Formats: sequence, C-alpha cells, structure tokens
Amino acid sequence: MRIALGLEYDGSAFCGWQSQPGRCGVQDALEAALGGIAATPIGTHAAGRTDAGVHATSQVVHFDTDASRPLTAWVRGANALLPSAAAALWAQAVAGDFHARFAASARHYTYLLVTRGERPALGARHVGWYHHPLDVDAMRAGAAHLVGTHDFSAFRAAECQAKSPVKSLSRLAIDGDAGLVRFDFTANAFLHHMVRNIVGSLVYVGAGRQPPAWIGELVAARDRTRAAPTFGASGLYLCGADYDPRFGLPATRRGVALPLAK
Amino acid sequence: MRIALGLEYDGSAFCGWQSQPGRCGVQDALEAALGGIAATPIGTHAAGRTDAGVHATSQVVHFDTDASRPLTAWVRGANALLPSAAAALWAQAVAGDFHARFAASARHYTYLLVTRGERPALGARHVGWYHHPLDVDAMRAGAAHLVGTHDFSAFRAAECQAKSPVKSLSRLAIDGDAGLVRFDFTANAFLHHMVRNIVGSLVYVGAGRQPPAWIGELVAARDRTRAAPTFGASGLYLCGADYDPRFGLPATRRGVALPLAK
Repeated sequence: MRIALGLEYDGSAFCGWQSQPGRCGVQDALEAALGGIAATPIGTHAAGRTDAGVHATSQVVHFDTDASRPLTAWVRGANALLPSAAAALWAQAVAGDFHARFAASARHYTYLLVTRGERPALGARHVGWYHHPLDVDAMRAGAAHLVGTHDFSAFRAAECQAKSPVKSLSRLAIDGDAGLVRFDFTANAFLHHMVRNIVGSLVYVGAGRQPPAWIGELVAARDRTRAAPTFGASGLYLCGADYDPRFGLPATRRGVALPLAK
Repeated sequence: MRIALGLEYDGSAFCGWQSQPGRCGVQDALEAALGGIAATPIGTHAAGRTDAGVHATSQVVHFDTDASRPLTAWVRGANALLPSAAAALWAQAVAGDFHARFAASARHYTYLLVTRGERPALGARHVGWYHHPLDVDAMRAGAAHLVGTHDFSAFRAAECQAKSPVKSLSRLAIDGDAGLVRFDFTANAFLHHMVRNIVGSLVYVGAGRQPPAWIGELVAARDRTRAAPTFGASGLYLCGADYDPRFGLPATRRGVALPLAK
C-alpha cells in the first residue's frame, strides 16, 4: 500500500530533508517514526529536498508499507514519535503510480525577508535579513524577467544535480510592507539554491545596486558568477506541491503563519 | 547618565528575563553586552520580568553609566555582542527619574494560540496550542468580565510577589481566524502568570466546557484553584510599555505580525 503524508517542519532543527549518516535529516526522523508505527523499516520520498535550515509548511512525502493501520494512526503516531520541530498534518492512501517527487507538477516556495537596521532576534532562524528598506516596485520589475520558461543557469548552484537548467517559473509575486518583504514562487521544479540565488539578485535591484533590466541580462548570460550571492536559508519555506487531481490528495498549499515582530 | 533601550528577544533561548546564577537570563546576556561596550559592569531594570520561554517584541530596559558613547554605539555594540536570540532596537538618553519598571503606566502583552488537530511544528516554541477550534464569540463574552479594575487573585500564581492583586485591565481583544486565535492584553501591571492563567480559563469557555459567565464567577471568588490551569509560555509576547510623554521615548508598542495568511 502506498501512502502520502503532509509534513510541517522547522528547518533550523535539521540538516535538511535528506537522510544523512549522522541521522540529522528530516527524512531520518520521519523514517524512524514511521518505522516505529509499522514495526518494520520504511523508506520515504519527498516533493522537495529542502536544504539545511529551510522550513516546510507543507512538504509532501510518500512511502510504501504492508502494515495495515488506520490513516489517523500514521498521523497521530508520527506526531507522538517525531521531534517537536516536525509534525504530520494528514495521511492519505494513494494509487501505486503516485510519486511525491516525480508526480509533482509544481512546487510552491515562499521567502520572507525582514528589512530593517537591526537584525531580527525573534525570527533569527525563520526569516532572511537585509539592513535597509528595499524598493519593491523595482524588484517586481526585475522579477518580470524571470517569469516564464528559461534556462536558469545564472541561479543554479554548482552542486545542482538537475538534468536540465530549463525550468518554468509560473509565478513570482513580491509583497512588501514596512519592514517585511515576501516572495512567492511557483515553478514546475527548482534548481538547487534557485530561490535563494534569485532573492539575492532581486535584493541587489531593490537596494538600487542594479537596475531591473540587469535580471534579464543575468538570465541571458546564464553565468552564475555574474549574479549576486546566495541568500540565507532561514527565510525559505516549502509551501506545497501540486499533483493531478486523480490522486485525490488534500489541498497541500499552506502559507506561512509565523509570529514576527514588526 | 541614564539610558533607555528597546529590546527584542526569542524567549525560547533564555530562562526568563531575570538574571540567574547560571547566567541564562536575558538580563545576564544584556548586562554582559552593555558591560563590554562600557568596559565596566552595568546593571539593568526592565518594564516586564518575563518568564522562561516568554518572548518580547518590545521590552523596555534602563541602565546608568558614566561611559560616554554615541547612542548608536549602544545599539550596534549590543547587537554585535548579544546572542542571536536577542537584539537591541533603539537607545535613548532619559531623565534621571525615568525607571523602566516603576515609571511604566501600562504594559501590552499578546498571546498567540494555534487551534488545530495536529501540534504546531514550525511554531513549536512561538505559539500556544489547543487541539480543537474555539468559539471566539464566547471567549469575548467571557473576557468582558475581566476588563476593568478587579482583584485578579483567581489568576495569580502562588509565587507572585506583587503587593496588591488589584490591577486595571484596560483592554482584552480577541481575534480569531481559521486555526489561530490572538489575545491582546493591556493593563497598568500584571500579576505573575496572569495572562497565561486568563488564557487557560478563556480556552475552557471557548471549548464549551464553561459558559462565559463562569469568568465573572472566577473573578468574584478570587480563588486560583477554581480557575483553569496555566497555559504554556511559548505563545506569550511582551509587546511594549507606556511611559509619560515627557520622557520622550520612541514608540515602544510593536505587534506580533503574522506576515502570511494561512
């Protein structure tokens, strides 16, 4: 039987999604919990392999098991066995051809950026920080060069294992008010560090160090060394993944509701 | 010279405001940082002596020093020396009769409560949690019995050192949407655990275990043992204190903002 599971986690407590020899990955904690419920080892696959420090309001995972348990037992059992920084939200039986990673048609990420002179203390592990206000309109004009199907090599980490640098970014919305800017990304898939690299370059535009058209030049040049440095992991959230409705998953999209001082 | 300082902190990283032998208090960290800037020991006083796990978007502190430093040096120096879970927001020279604790005419606290079946993982250290939706209108009707000047003994911790249990609660606003309830309190002063004890009893009303009028009965009975248990520290935020305008402090009131809808 194949089961899909919704998962929320605070990335500051883990070394990333992926299983590690030191067992510090979210995957390690989840597989230990699910294995405890099933009383047999369980392997998992996730929609997004988030980096160390990156959070999830809604990660989608699947696993196969012969253990017969009510769906609520997977959720309640996981929440009894997982560390406090991770929680299961729902569980659903799915068809055998469902795959959390390969069947996802889109992923949603949000980046939260505090812009003020003093570093954030309450959100130290949960937001990015820039020490000056940013021009949101200029960043929006820059972002317009990114929406669509492009070769995103300029925003791709050297260690990225994706087969192709061409991705379709269907949405990049930027909203700002006093002291906080929020970037909402939707794409079919993301390259390694793509969101954090894009945020870094948009901050250059918002700070007036580069004009909006520079973003278009970066895309055309396909050269990582010309773009800005990678922005911090602490502001990044995986907020859901889309699947064909025939799989019958619950709505996976969940925004960030995090208390922040403003 | 007397200086007032605004401070933000993540209470989950400290054992409360007050200095402790183990040096785990916010006060210990702040006095070490300020003493480093002044190159001489500095003692501090705070508007609200928050408990372990309780956060501050805006704590107000004062200290006396003979060290002559630009005001920006106190803020930047503190932010260089404080741990990441605490940050200085502003510094201001004040008259010698200013006192962060005794001159405060009101304090503002906010309590954030997540109401859903699954425990919160992202907000594990930053919100309280109740496992069912709550009736906000019923809680508002209950809260109406609390606003005003009352003997709050029913909501007073045994270890409370206040001279009198009579306090003036000028505001208790309750706002709720799907999955999150927010309680905003303003009073001249608060008894030990008063906010968390009131939230505990209002949750009984919101869950239908008691009618709104029960809150009025608790106030009248002045008996802590009849009220509900203390709610968790993780959802509580000190959000500012009011002072006479003649002291010329910057606005100290800073809300806990929820940057994204859920």
